[in-house]
Amino acid sequence: MSDTPTKPVRPPEKNFKLVVEYDGSAYCGWQRQPNQPSIQGALENVLQRMTREAVTLHGSGRTDAGVHALGQTAHFKCRSRLSPDDLQKGMNGLLPGDIAVQSCQGVPLDFHARFDSRWKLYRYRICNRPVKQAVGRQYAWQIFRPLDVAAMEQGTRHLVGRHDFKSFESSGSPRDQTVREVMAASWQHNDDHLEFDIRANGFLRYMVRNIVGTLVAVGMGKLDADAIPALLRAADRRLAPATAPPHGLFLVHVQY
Amino acid sequence: MSDTPTKPVRPPEKNFKLVVEYDGSAYCGWQRQPNQPSIQGALENVLQRMTREAVTLHGSGRTDAGVHALGQTAHFKCRSRLSPDDLQKGMNGLLPGDIAVQSCQGVPLDFHARFDSRWKLYRYRICNRPVKQAVGRQYAWQIFRPLDVAAMEQGTRHLVGRHDFKSFESSGSPRDQTVREVMAASWQHNDDHLEFDIRANGFLRYMVRNIVGTLVAVGMGKLDADAIPALLRAADRRLAPATAPPHGLFLVHVQY
Repeated sequence: MSDTPTKPVRPPEKNFKLVVEYDGSAYCGWQRQPNQPSIQGALENVLQRMTREAVTLHGSGRTDAGVHALGQTAHFKCRSRLSPDDLQKGMNGLLPGDIAVQSCQGVPLDFHARFDSRWKLYRYRICNRPVKQAVGRQYAWQIFRPLDVAAMEQGTRHLVGRHDFKSFESSGSPRDQTVREVMAASWQHNDDHLEFDIRANGFLRYMVRNIVGTLVAVGMGKLDADAIPALLRAADRRLAPATAPPHGLFLVHVQY
Repeated sequence: MSDTPTKPVRPPEKNFKLVVEYDGSAYCGWQRQPNQPSIQGALENVLQRMTREAVTLHGSGRTDAGVHALGQTAHFKCRSRLSPDDLQKGMNGLLPGDIAVQSCQGVPLDFHARFDSRWKLYRYRICNRPVKQAVGRQYAWQIFRPLDVAAMEQGTRHLVGRHDFKSFESSGSPRDQTVREVMAASWQHNDDHLEFDIRANGFLRYMVRNIVGTLVAVGMGKLDADAIPALLRAADRRLAPATAPPHGLFLVHVQY
């Protein structure tokens, strides 16, 4: 028999998956930045207070400043004895009103929110009316001139499928591999609100906002819907119209 | 002939009617208050800059702190040569993003936004789901427990018609005449969102929020739907359940 005191048994490491909704208006984006409020930073701070561990959150991907989410996902590892339900309730109680954990579940240790995602669904909201909008202005891009939705739908058809989306990538962030598969993309029209849903196996930086900017140019008659295939083939960001603003964009769902 | 210089002819006084949309989140309410941001104050300041006259705006009625509007109305008189269209465009350019003039029209000099209104339509929005809401939280009261909408609809039926609504008036603001006619009141159910529309020839202070607070108590099983007639007859505010918060309430339309 040994007389050394028994060390308390450390609970085993566990992996948790979060689904998070947020209003991105007040944040510099998902990713933690020094001296700026980020969604990741807000969540990590709360998790550290609850677990007393230095928790690192891995998101399914970044969302840019001002972009919202209904179903961003992330995973983190910790040794806390708190149940997923306790973690969710505790986080929602400590987080500010503009961030809400929709679910928290235990997942296998090798689950990775970014590498295991199969597809993502983004939504872009446009308010198309001639008079200034006040209520809900933080959740839609207002376009004052009437848009030709049929032309935008025609342009959208050219984007579905497997394409090199280099022309729709943020110019400052080139990647080696710019081919993505858009599984579905469509517009919904409700009074003066337009919603664009786009589902793909992955998205380049600014890809949705660049696509929306281009389709709005089509809807305004500045670009022909059937010019989009040539735009894709050119693989040159400088040719595509301006980027749509961030506040109309929502990360809706990440599928595993 | 007189040699006194001719005075420039003053343009005649004109009367203008505004329809105004606002997000009330950042305001102390419609009515101008010293040292607090109000909708009326913001509109008057902009009108004074544009017309160089001390303009007084008369609203159809007050909305309380945090209450929103899609169609608040107001009138003001001035001698400006600006057209209604110029006034609207100028105001929308100078106003902050959370206030938007939906229309501006010339009206007869005796038009009065408050005294000439025939009915008003208010909407109250509830988010009924068990998990915290982040996106759109400033536009709906979240109720975490499931509500019995059928019971709330049953309670609503007792409110339609001509009644003394003293039991649903703010306790701090008694009026001599507390009889109002509710022309229509109904609930719409859409996923986890509930919308209550109520149209009446006039509203007492806090009346919609007190009615919604009472109907939510019915939906939670705390009050029987058929107890509402007795509540109306009692004409005593202390008997009715708590007031619903302001941020779910919208003044939708004022009819003349």
